[in-house]
Amino acid sequence: MKSTLGSKGANLCEMTNLAIPVPPGFIISTQACIEYYTNNTLPKGLEDEIMLNLQTLENTVNKRLASQNPLLLSVRSGAPVSMPGMMDTVLNLGLNDDTVKALADTTGNERLAYDCYRRFLDMFADVVLGIDHKNFETILDSIKKQAGAAHDTELDANHLKKLTEQYKNIITEKTGQKFPKDPFTQLKMAIQAIFRSWNNERAISYRNLNNIPHNIGTAVNIQAMVYGNTGNKSASGVCFTRDPATGENQLYGEYLINAQGEDVVAGIRTPQNIATLKNTMPVIYNELESTCKAIEKHYRDMQDIEFTIENEKLYILQTRTGKRTATSAVKIAVDMVKENMIKKEDAVLRIDPNQLEQLLFPTIDPKYPTNVIAKGLPASPGAAAGKTVFSSKKAILAKERGEKVILIRSETSPEDVAGVVASQGILTAKGGMTSHAAVVARGMGKCCIAGCSKISVFEDADVFIAGDIKVHEGDTITLNGTTGEVILGEAKLTRQGISGEFKTLLEWADTIRNLGVEANADTPNDAKTALDFGAQGIGLCRTEHMFFNKERLTYVRQMILATTEDEINTALEKLQEFQKKDFYRIFEVMREKPVTIRLLDPPLHEFLPRGKEDIEKTSKEMHVSEERLKDIIQRLHESNPMLGHRGCRLGITHPAIYDMQVRAIIEAACELTKDWESGGSGKVGTEHKGGIINITTKSNKYPNIEIMVPLVADVKELIITKKRIIKTAKKVMEEKNITVPYKIGTMIEVPRAALTAGEIAKEAEFFSFGTNDLTQMGFGLSRDDAGKFLPSYIKQGIVKSDPFQTLDQKGIGELIKIAVTKGRAARKDLVIGICGEHGGEPKSIEFCHRLRLNYVSCSPYRIPIARLAAAHAALKERIMIHPQTSQSSQTPP
Amino acid sequence: MKSTLGSKGANLCEMTNLAIPVPPGFIISTQACIEYYTNNTLPKGLEDEIMLNLQTLENTVNKRLASQNPLLLSVRSGAPVSMPGMMDTVLNLGLNDDTVKALADTTGNERLAYDCYRRFLDMFADVVLGIDHKNFETILDSIKKQAGAAHDTELDANHLKKLTEQYKNIITEKTGQKFPKDPFTQLKMAIQAIFRSWNNERAISYRNLNNIPHNIGTAVNIQAMVYGNTGNKSASGVCFTRDPATGENQLYGEYLINAQGEDVVAGIRTPQNIATLKNTMPVIYNELESTCKAIEKHYRDMQDIEFTIENEKLYILQTRTGKRTATSAVKIAVDMVKENMIKKEDAVLRIDPNQLEQLLFPTIDPKYPTNVIAKGLPASPGAAAGKTVFSSKKAILAKERGEKVILIRSETSPEDVAGVVASQGILTAKGGMTSHAAVVARGMGKCCIAGCSKISVFEDADVFIAGDIKVHEGDTITLNGTTGEVILGEAKLTRQGISGEFKTLLEWADTIRNLGVEANADTPNDAKTALDFGAQGIGLCRTEHMFFNKERLTYVRQMILATTEDEINTALEKLQEFQKKDFYRIFEVMREKPVTIRLLDPPLHEFLPRGKEDIEKTSKEMHVSEERLKDIIQRLHESNPMLGHRGCRLGITHPAIYDMQVRAIIEAACELTKDWESGGSGKVGTEHKGGIINITTKSNKYPNIEIMVPLVADVKELIITKKRIIKTAKKVMEEKNITVPYKIGTMIEVPRAALTAGEIAKEAEFFSFGTNDLTQMGFGLSRDDAGKFLPSYIKQGIVKSDPFQTLDQKGIGELIKIAVTKGRAARKDLVIGICGEHGGEPKSIEFCHRLRLNYVSCSPYRIPIARLAAAHAALKERIMIHPQTSQSSQTPP
Repeated sequence: MKSTLGSKGANLCEMTNLAIPVPPGFIISTQACIEYYTNNTLPKGLEDEIMLNLQTLENTVNKRLASQNPLLLSVRSGAPVSMPGMMDTVLNLGLNDDTVKALADTTGNERLAYDCYRRFLDMFADVVLGIDHKNFETILDSIKKQAGAAHDTELDANHLKKLTEQYKNIITEKTGQKFPKDPFTQLKMAIQAIFRSWNNERAISYRNLNNIPHNIGTAVNIQAMVYGNTGNKSASGVCFTRDPATGENQLYGEYLINAQGEDVVAGIRTPQNIATLKNTMPVIYNELESTCKAIEKHYRDMQDIEFTIENEKLYILQTRTGKRTATSAVKIAVDMVKENMIKKEDAVLRIDPNQLEQLLFPTIDPKYPTNVIAKGLPASPGAAAGKTVFSSKKAILAKERGEKVILIRSETSPEDVAGVVASQGILTAKGGMTSHAAVVARGMGKCCIAGCSKISVFEDADVFIAGDIKVHEGDTITLNGTTGEVILGEAKLTRQGISGEFKTLLEWADTIRNLGVEANADTPNDAKTALDFGAQGIGLCRTEHMFFNKERLTYVRQMILATTEDEINTALEKLQEFQKKDFYRIFEVMREKPVTIRLLDPPLHEFLPRGKEDIEKTSKEMHVSEERLKDIIQRLHESNPMLGHRGCRLGITHPAIYDMQVRAIIEAACELTKDWESGGSGKVGTEHKGGIINITTKSNKYPNIEIMVPLVADVKELIITKKRIIKTAKKVMEEKNITVPYKIGTMIEVPRAALTAGEIAKEAEFFSFGTNDLTQMGFGLSRDDAGKFLPSYIKQGIVKSDPFQTLDQKGIGELIKIAVTKGRAARKDLVIGICGEHGGEPKSIEFCHRLRLNYVSCSPYRIPIARLAAAHAALKERIMIHPQTSQSSQTPP
Repeated sequence: MKSTLGSKGANLCEMTNLAIPVPPGFIISTQACIEYYTNNTLPKGLEDEIMLNLQTLENTVNKRLASQNPLLLSVRSGAPVSMPGMMDTVLNLGLNDDTVKALADTTGNERLAYDCYRRFLDMFADVVLGIDHKNFETILDSIKKQAGAAHDTELDANHLKKLTEQYKNIITEKTGQKFPKDPFTQLKMAIQAIFRSWNNERAISYRNLNNIPHNIGTAVNIQAMVYGNTGNKSASGVCFTRDPATGENQLYGEYLINAQGEDVVAGIRTPQNIATLKNTMPVIYNELESTCKAIEKHYRDMQDIEFTIENEKLYILQTRTGKRTATSAVKIAVDMVKENMIKKEDAVLRIDPNQLEQLLFPTIDPKYPTNVIAKGLPASPGAAAGKTVFSSKKAILAKERGEKVILIRSETSPEDVAGVVASQGILTAKGGMTSHAAVVARGMGKCCIAGCSKISVFEDADVFIAGDIKVHEGDTITLNGTTGEVILGEAKLTRQGISGEFKTLLEWADTIRNLGVEANADTPNDAKTALDFGAQGIGLCRTEHMFFNKERLTYVRQMILATTEDEINTALEKLQEFQKKDFYRIFEVMREKPVTIRLLDPPLHEFLPRGKEDIEKTSKEMHVSEERLKDIIQRLHESNPMLGHRGCRLGITHPAIYDMQVRAIIEAACELTKDWESGGSGKVGTEHKGGIINITTKSNKYPNIEIMVPLVADVKELIITKKRIIKTAKKVMEEKNITVPYKIGTMIEVPRAALTAGEIAKEAEFFSFGTNDLTQMGFGLSRDDAGKFLPSYIKQGIVKSDPFQTLDQKGIGELIKIAVTKGRAARKDLVIGICGEHGGEPKSIEFCHRLRLNYVSCSPYRIPIARLAAAHAALKERIMIHPQTSQSSQTPP
């Protein structure tokens, strides 16, 4: 019933049903909020209903609003989808100059009564009357100073009484009216304020950011107050049923003695670790632990729970699914399968593939020394380096300039969410592991160090001080979110492998998915990394990347600048040697797995020097006059290189280059095959493209080569290129006196190729969609130039997201669909993959799954994401087809 | 039966049936040639069949081969498709030292006998034995010198006898064998030589050029010789049934007294005009005239006829459809309709739309003085200017360098065809109106001056002399093909309008076509020209072209370089004034006809200076520092401007520009409407897009405005732009207190737009395919760069023709098809046109017709071509659907 009761309200009801100790109360439905917005006034009859329910509540707790045994209320917002911190709450409602005295009398705790009163005045003024909270904080600070109190707990009842007087004066001053004494009036005003808070600026932007509809409204939870601030036998706290950073199966949280809940979340005092509660209140700790377990078991997921202890009695104020790091998410999901709480499929579905990026994010390389200048709480793991900024606004501006920044704040508030999004990592001086900054950062997988009390942050001066080191805006620092270390300068980063629960989860994903996952890898090292991450082959080996190292580049330039056939051939022979060695080693690493080699793609001018200095240098090095060099650069210059003389166009007009590459490939394959034969390694076999679908167990002893022709726009280009490939390959095999198998296929990256895929499939044994170029040409967008208007397009909603990151399914996807349909119609067993950058993007992967591609190919570090995303795609399809039987995650096992 | 008998042979048979005096003979079928190529030898039984037919022939003419009453044979090639001059012929076959005497005896004309013998020896040696004709020419020249003879006719029998002896010696010398005496051997050898000539180099390249299949073979026509060289009562000639240059309905041609046909065609002596035959042989002239009329009537088209007069008896040797200039073609077609020979549809179909280009070609502007240095025969009309070249090879090389050249030759031969193709015009010193150069040039619509005996051409020295003026290679001359004047330097050219038969033909085309024809026109002048050529509207008015004049460019640059809103607005206001004036005048010219205005399309950097000097100059003029100017140029620079920040992308990020343009359009429309109202001109009405299909006769008083948004890739771009257009238009109309109608539509030029045309059509009232950009993006070809490989692609047959000239129907056409289908499904009455350069190309127009586009839009000078091509498309479709009833041109009326 979340849509009616809100998420918080529904959970409160469920807990009540489970006999969990929840303060009694009632809920105003989201419908009332929707009606409020339709008619600009509270719905008719709502007031009567509230009075009726209030009476029941009064009877239950045996206290009455506005009476001498006063009932105080907690009035909290609660949307159908959790929007933590985005909307408003009013606590201790019902107090006025009379009831505060009555509360003091009935509880025998005058301090409690005035502590509640000053909190209520502050909160009501802020939320309902719109008076800035800072006004009250200033007075609190000055009274604390007068009293010599470090914390608010050190203030006595008289201080607090004085405070309430001053608070009331401010309210009168700011509003021109007295504070509303009548608790019923207070309640009505609070409900309307909460309804209004549904459409405050930060709530709207949060909903935009999280794709939450704007018309579902919020519920209002009205409960009897319980008091964590009665004294040292009371406390308020927040706890997670498992560790949200590591996933360890143990209570994790914090609490504050003699405090109300807001104090913990806002990070006003640094709270105590939940473990210490075992010593201070052992009975309560045990009760909390077993209650938490019960709640987790019910929801079959890790919970984030708010609790209050009132005079050694435990109350649960709220439970929700806990936000967690990727590490924690993976461990919890795998553990829960082992604990028989959920199925493997549930575990797989629970991990957002995008979240895995965190696990693959770099960490600080321990091999290099670092200059640690402070240490705080390791609130969200990972590592991040960037220039310091001291406000969210600056972080956003820096992001727009393409800079990487670390956001430094004394403490963060919900207003900072956009700033956190724009930053690489967050460092706060105040707040604990459950502070706003920590929770938000963990949710986004950003590195965060919180409560770093060793530093002093001067936000207005754009500087922080750690010991005697001043760090100014724009200085670079590195955060180690795993250890809490703040490092001056940019530290060396390294990447992690896959092990433990992560490995298990991906293996489960592998058993579920239909789509093969291969890697874009250009070197033997890339190939090894790809295998480590679980690649089933190389879907794209870009041969030109082998040319860019200095020694090789010299030969490429020699070839381009050559004036005679002999010079060209000498340069090509050199390049061939390099390429052959590379291919040999890549084939050796990949063994039986397919290696798809794309022949030279970029235009020749990319290999020539740019800029005056580089031209001068090259002229000297190559013994070519500057004039001639400039002339050649001029002649090779293109107005639109993206649509220029490259790919197979170059192969057709300069066939010697492709001949050389094919020779290198086939020579390497022949030599490796011979070496395998003589070495007698029995491990080689054949695995076809498309991984899981097409595995055959035929055994042979050859590398698995696929030669891919780039930029084909017309089948005739492929026919001509293929003829030469076959001719060269045959010649090499004759020379080497051995036959090796290989396939010839093509990139589909020019729109025309997609449109004429039927013809092309007759000549190609495989297709690989180059979605980068297909997007550039199909969308008419140059990736190098689109930055001039794409951000504005995204802002205006013309495109949902950067089409170079997430495949444009409607337009470019349509081209892919056409090509798949025509291609498969012409060649039934056509192997089809995708090797553009979309191959590692979950939404695009789902699209590839639906189109029944054989595999996706992506950068090695995105392989795990692709494996999981492919499993998600398969599971989502099962759920679509068999909603009852497959939606196992919806019913207990 | 052309495929079996060849074109020449079939016509000879038909003429025989019509009782036209044709020398008797028989034909060896093309089948024999095909078998000859299959088996590399003459088909079995062919020899027997030849002997049998030869006997019949001998009986008919009462002469015998190799007898004392010798029969001589004409052995001529004749392919199913006319390939003039490409294959070989042997005349006077049957002569040897014995039969030549017999011929002299029986005819009593020794000179005739030896004239035939020397011709035969020369021709047989050249064609059958492969001995260069020049060897014989040299001897002929030296004998002529000895004899003091200017022409071969002045040589007597003894001279010729001596000549034959020397000829035989050369043959023995060159072949090491005696000349084959036996006439039967001669015949067999000649037949094989003719079969071989089917695959000589120039025949193959001619077939490639004209898309004639290579496997259809040639027939061989064997006829009894008739002699035009018996003396002054004999002659050979060529005539056209109507004037091939002007189309006048009168005999046109040339003849040579005492000559064989080859003399006329080769241009060895300058022949006499056919009209003079009326005086010299009035009876024969009348017979020739009536025979020609009969043949023309039979074939229902102008004929090119070869004839021989042997002792005052007329023989017709060949008839074929005559090649003609476009002017002539149009006049003949229209005249023949008037003469009831053909139907209007036939007339329309007979004119190749591409040929019309000639009629629209520039001619020499009589208003300017010219330096005429010589005058020759006006062999092919029009005007052309270019640098002189003196060989076909040089003409081809110059063409490849992009230069315009005039080919100068003493006389041309079939080897020069490629040189003629590469040249703007041809000038020859020798040869008449039916010489090789004249015929080929007329066929191609190239300007040609032939027989310009006033000049001396020194081909080896690359120079010609006209009087005392020396013209060297590379000097520029202009040819006036209509008057025969050779002009030194580049003359002023002008363009012709449409009148007379041309006008009539186009009006017939208009009644046949379904496709509307509009113009790409950017100025009021363009608009006027477009109307003169019959445009039904403006399909593309490129507003940016209005910005490139110096004064306006300054304001565009001011806008781009502005630092304040005020500066931008000041510049925009200025530009708006200019644009408003332009629009007002264009609307005024076009009246009720649609004017489709494309909002600004190119990226801003196109308006900035390029190159050091231009930047310096602009910096001074605009009072902007060079640094700042360079900085802005740098910031606006794009790697791939084709895919860059332009079109509606610019409109969306810089909305003030489009606002300005819309304001200019609507203000102009409001003001003109008011002016019309007050002026009371009643001529205005409304005509909808698509011309003929959609004409409605609703009458109102507004210009017919269509605002077109360029470079839309996603419907949301159109939605946003449309909203602003409507807002601005509304505001202007409120200010002007008048409402004017207008439509909003979009270019479809990004592949994605075509793929998502269904969505876009919901927002667009019309589509216009920008096939230039659609080709660039869909094919992945940059028009500016494709020159680097496209020529090689065309040569290798990867693409048939430049896809920027002829629409790529398979690929880009598929995108258009998708867009038309989706667009019309979403909006039934969607008006669809095409405004890329393909809009004026006949094949592409046919494609547009088949897809049921409403109109094509092309440059004003291509409008007549488009009108005719659209009619062709409609007629071809009728023939496809009703082949019997529509193919009226195949049966006599």
